[in-house]
Amino acid sequence: MPSEELTNPNSSATPFDDDSHRNGNEARAHDKDKKVITKSRSTLEDLQNVFNPKIYVPGSYKYSRQYLRERLSRSILHEFSIDEQKTRIELAAAYRLAAKNGWLESIYNHITCNVTSSSGERHLLINPLGLNYCEITASSLMKIDYDGNMIHPGVFGDIMGLNKAGVIIHSCVHRARSDVHCVFHNHYLAVAGLSATKNGVIELTQTAHITGEIAYHDYEGIVRSTDEQQRLVCDLGEKDVMILRNHGLLTCGPSVGAAYYHTYTLCAAAEMQSHACSMAFNKDDLLIPDNRFVKLSMDRAKDLNKEPFGTLEFAAAMRELDYDQDHSAYPDYRN
Amino acid sequence: MPSEELTNPNSSATPFDDDSHRNGNEARAHDKDKKVITKSRSTLEDLQNVFNPKIYVPGSYKYSRQYLRERLSRSILHEFSIDEQKTRIELAAAYRLAAKNGWLESIYNHITCNVTSSSGERHLLINPLGLNYCEITASSLMKIDYDGNMIHPGVFGDIMGLNKAGVIIHSCVHRARSDVHCVFHNHYLAVAGLSATKNGVIELTQTAHITGEIAYHDYEGIVRSTDEQQRLVCDLGEKDVMILRNHGLLTCGPSVGAAYYHTYTLCAAAEMQSHACSMAFNKDDLLIPDNRFVKLSMDRAKDLNKEPFGTLEFAAAMRELDYDQDHSAYPDYRN
Amino acid sequence: MPSEELTNPNSSATPFDDDSHRNGNEARAHDKDKKVITKSRSTLEDLQNVFNPKIYVPGSYKYSRQYLRERLSRSILHEFSIDEQKTRIELAAAYRLAAKNGWLESIYNHITCNVTSSSGERHLLINPLGLNYCEITASSLMKIDYDGNMIHPGVFGDIMGLNKAGVIIHSCVHRARSDVHCVFHNHYLAVAGLSATKNGVIELTQTAHITGEIAYHDYEGIVRSTDEQQRLVCDLGEKDVMILRNHGLLTCGPSVGAAYYHTYTLCAAAEMQSHACSMAFNKDDLLIPDNRFVKLSMDRAKDLNKEPFGTLEFAAAMRELDYDQDHSAYPDYRN
Amino acid sequence: MPSEELTNPNSSATPFDDDSHRNGNEARAHDKDKKVITKSRSTLEDLQNVFNPKIYVPGSYKYSRQYLRERLSRSILHEFSIDEQKTRIELAAAYRLAAKNGWLESIYNHITCNVTSSSGERHLLINPLGLNYCEITASSLMKIDYDGNMIHPGVFGDIMGLNKAGVIIHSCVHRARSDVHCVFHNHYLAVAGLSATKNGVIELTQTAHITGEIAYHDYEGIVRSTDEQQRLVCDLGEKDVMILRNHGLLTCGPSVGAAYYHTYTLCAAAEMQSHACSMAFNKDDLLIPDNRFVKLSMDRAKDLNKEPFGTLEFAAAMRELDYDQDHSAYPDYRN
Repeated sequence: MPSEELTNPNSSATPFDDDSHRNGNEARAHDKDKKVITKSRSTLEDLQNVFNPKIYVPGSYKYSRQYLRERLSRSILHEFSIDEQKTRIELAAAYRLAAKNGWLESIYNHITCNVTSSSGERHLLINPLGLNYCEITASSLMKIDYDGNMIHPGVFGDIMGLNKAGVIIHSCVHRARSDVHCVFHNHYLAVAGLSATKNGVIELTQTAHITGEIAYHDYEGIVRSTDEQQRLVCDLGEKDVMILRNHGLLTCGPSVGAAYYHTYTLCAAAEMQSHACSMAFNKDDLLIPDNRFVKLSMDRAKDLNKEPFGTLEFAAAMRELDYDQDHSAYPDYRN
Repeated sequence: MPSEELTNPNSSATPFDDDSHRNGNEARAHDKDKKVITKSRSTLEDLQNVFNPKIYVPGSYKYSRQYLRERLSRSILHEFSIDEQKTRIELAAAYRLAAKNGWLESIYNHITCNVTSSSGERHLLINPLGLNYCEITASSLMKIDYDGNMIHPGVFGDIMGLNKAGVIIHSCVHRARSDVHCVFHNHYLAVAGLSATKNGVIELTQTAHITGEIAYHDYEGIVRSTDEQQRLVCDLGEKDVMILRNHGLLTCGPSVGAAYYHTYTLCAAAEMQSHACSMAFNKDDLLIPDNRFVKLSMDRAKDLNKEPFGTLEFAAAMRELDYDQDHSAYPDYRN
Repeated sequence: MPSEELTNPNSSATPFDDDSHRNGNEARAHDKDKKVITKSRSTLEDLQNVFNPKIYVPGSYKYSRQYLRERLSRSILHEFSIDEQKTRIELAAAYRLAAKNGWLESIYNHITCNVTSSSGERHLLINPLGLNYCEITASSLMKIDYDGNMIHPGVFGDIMGLNKAGVIIHSCVHRARSDVHCVFHNHYLAVAGLSATKNGVIELTQTAHITGEIAYHDYEGIVRSTDEQQRLVCDLGEKDVMILRNHGLLTCGPSVGAAYYHTYTLCAAAEMQSHACSMAFNKDDLLIPDNRFVKLSMDRAKDLNKEPFGTLEFAAAMRELDYDQDHSAYPDYRN
Repeated sequence: MPSEELTNPNSSATPFDDDSHRNGNEARAHDKDKKVITKSRSTLEDLQNVFNPKIYVPGSYKYSRQYLRERLSRSILHEFSIDEQKTRIELAAAYRLAAKNGWLESIYNHITCNVTSSSGERHLLINPLGLNYCEITASSLMKIDYDGNMIHPGVFGDIMGLNKAGVIIHSCVHRARSDVHCVFHNHYLAVAGLSATKNGVIELTQTAHITGEIAYHDYEGIVRSTDEQQRLVCDLGEKDVMILRNHGLLTCGPSVGAAYYHTYTLCAAAEMQSHACSMAFNKDDLLIPDNRFVKLSMDRAKDLNKEPFGTLEFAAAMRELDYDQDHSAYPDYRN
């Protein structure tokens, strides 16, 4: 049990404060000093005084809603470039939409975007491990480099650490594909089921066709080693949608909206395939359209409306979040 | 990125104003003039001033909730005949119900009604592409002719354009069937799955029988050409319910309620068929009722209560929307 | 279009008023007289004045929320015996729970209870056709005799008529089974699917066993004739749970709670069977428990707690409705 | 019908009061005395006065929301050790999360934790039978010994009794496994379906691997006898996840979070398997990963983040409950 838990959560002096969003490493060093102070202070306190049944959660009081509420209500967007602000808002929205759509496994899976610093370096925005998707705000996203080193911890700070497996899957795609701005990865139930069939995606419906061509990557166990990155980007190639065998999906695109809409249609297509195959007693009962119609639809899907792929769809989905916010107890994702 | 984004959304002079609902072409021409003015004005403004993290969405500030909220709160129903007002309210309700029932794919799919002008011409009411179904109001529906030309843009205007594919599927049914007032088309998951099986609808349950006789139309890729229209209406014939193979459903009827209730029962019947076939290990395990009972039920289903088919069902569903509205942040569909 | 629609809904003199709940036949005769008056009055009014976009629904303004809201806010429970009041409250709760659980098809399907008059006659309480399940209140239930004649129309009155098919299915069970107080019938998706398989219920899970022994009734098309009643009660026999082949379910019991809980477990068991059979590639892959364990569980299920079967379960479910009511725009089911 | 129903629920003297949480047996004896008094008092009252349509539920007025609301608003947490308080809060949260996730069958199924008294005895915390999961509070949990004798009835008291079958399944695991703090048991639909297939869990997806190794226990009918306990713990062995054949699941762990997260991943894995098998026409169509990758993932899953298994996941889930509470009519689970 971390020592922080011994600190009175009602104390006005929080051991991890606003300084944390200046520079990641500096903030963490700074924080370590504080911990020492905190620890000596907290040994002076009675454990019973510290415990508060209205905010208690296991692990650390820093995981409590009360502690996080204050963090998540802060916006530090003004510290970033307009481009990064836009990316942060869209990415936070993507997490909230993923929560609505079941595109997550508890606190796991990731959606990432790359941003370019004023000095031209590309970094990744990613959710801090441990937050619910429905809690994520634009200012709480962490900025890391492609090797997983902290660049900026956001308002949330490095309280809960980083999901190394997540970084491995995402960073190699961002590195290999200069056309990619955003990557989605999740274990959506119907897609994860589909990923464990030899057939993979069967091009049964127009919705599947709109998803585009599908890449496949074989399972090697929970991703931990960087060895797998090369095989992963090689399997992905130029495509934007990939089935991770026995695992889930990966989509990417030149915008958050594009990757979002690839995810949306793939998940729907997987549900449709599950229904179709339930209703078929053998593969011959399936009605598979002529390949030329599949190609035709894939081609036409690139031009569904006057905006780039996924833009209008994602803007509409963001408005739904904005309506939801009116009756929500959660922090505004735009913070 | 459209130039409009450079305009300050907080500016009192909106570049696209109320005039837009006078005459479609005129309004658009008018709008173009405004754009020129806007563009020159916006070059005077600093980009950073324009960006507002509380309303930002990708594509254009016109896709933001704040911009659309003001539009969608307006009612211009008094400008239309009583018959058109009724149709607009019912059609807006149909979109809201489709959103509740999952009868949509993101911003896509359509429900359309025809209305007759004082000079006897028949026009179509259709949703503006880009709005969420749950945002659609009676006054936001666009009026177009059967070739897709704008007759009246509604309060929303032609901001986001028109879905040509949608018009193609719908207009040919309205043109060919003088008995049809309303057409539904969507990709409901269970029906889209069913549409990709050779068996199609199996008349397993009373709910399927109530749906009525089923027509089938083969897949030719995303509909873009008007060539397909002739085959589509020919396949539909006199029936009110059609499976679009590898695609979804199309229902129609003499009222919004009739087409609504055909959609309702078909979607339920497809779910039932998915369950039944899951529970059967081969087709012989299915219990298919004697054809004379199927016919009997189809016949009796035309007379479920003292009102015309779908009326009582749809009025009840509209009341549910009215209850929902009390606790909703969305604009009233009756606007 | 009924003449009533011509009446101004904002008029203070409603054409169908409180008198309606005295005596069914009298009230209806009375109402007819009023209609004549109403009709002559409404011809004096301009159609355009009558139309109100904020309350318009197709069919009749009597189907509007505004008209029904006033009706459904009234309680006339004090007019009935304590026993009937209790039955009305439980039955209204059963409709609301059915709405939450998807045990309905639009406005169709029924749940009925019998009540005994002071003169010893048994009558049925049933929902007025056309109300949403989530709108039903204790005072809105209609009382009819076993042949479908109106005894008391409730506050709602005979506005929308009675579903004859519903009465046929329910009344014969109430007539044949003196031990039965309540009958549920619905087309729950998984059960309707199951009803179209030759296997019917396979006793795969404890939840299926708790449901009890299952009767089966063959499909004869939408029930309209009273001929079928004899076969239906004969098929049901002494059992409390019946699969209506190619149709849905029928459950009954000595209390609303008992019939409710039979429905609850049967619906869950059907979902489980759908999952199990999806995961089995042929019937041999199913693990069917030894018959003696099935019998053991069926026997033990009669005594799950110290209260009669379904009582504690139904009381708990009613409390959920009471919590829901706090944030609901719908009329209180206890009215 | 219990005599308590005759008592006026509006009476200020409740027949079952605060004393009930001192000592279980004492409180019950005490209560019996009160019942005698109550009975004689209630015979003086008119039945019609007692009945209140706004709070009536079948069985007893003690099952009404109004009666329970007052009980469930009380917190007696201060009476317990800090460790027990923490366990009670986490366990109450686990019930609420189970309600959100469909991990329950009406009022049935249990989640239990052991707590150690100051004299070193281990007792169980368990829900009082009859409460909805969404009503359970930290102070309403009952404390019993491993044979099912009441140690502390909580604020709720022994109103509704104890589910003996539940105690049998849970107590033997707590007794046999000193490493176990918490046990989950439920009949989640997809898992119950899976439990009735000979294949059981097929290691198709990473989510299944994260769940860990699976034990199996054969069905013997609804558990009532203590004979089965030995076979149950023997089948479980050292594992933390068990499929109860033809029944449901049992998970356990050194913390509520660990057992929670085992349940979470098993339920998701079962849904994925249902989808995968729907999409496969025979077992050969399934893509089953090499066993060494399965083992690798199982191993890596023990170390998903810097906190012990399930801690961060459960803390995040508790925060969701805390957000929900802001707009909830239900008593705070932290009471």
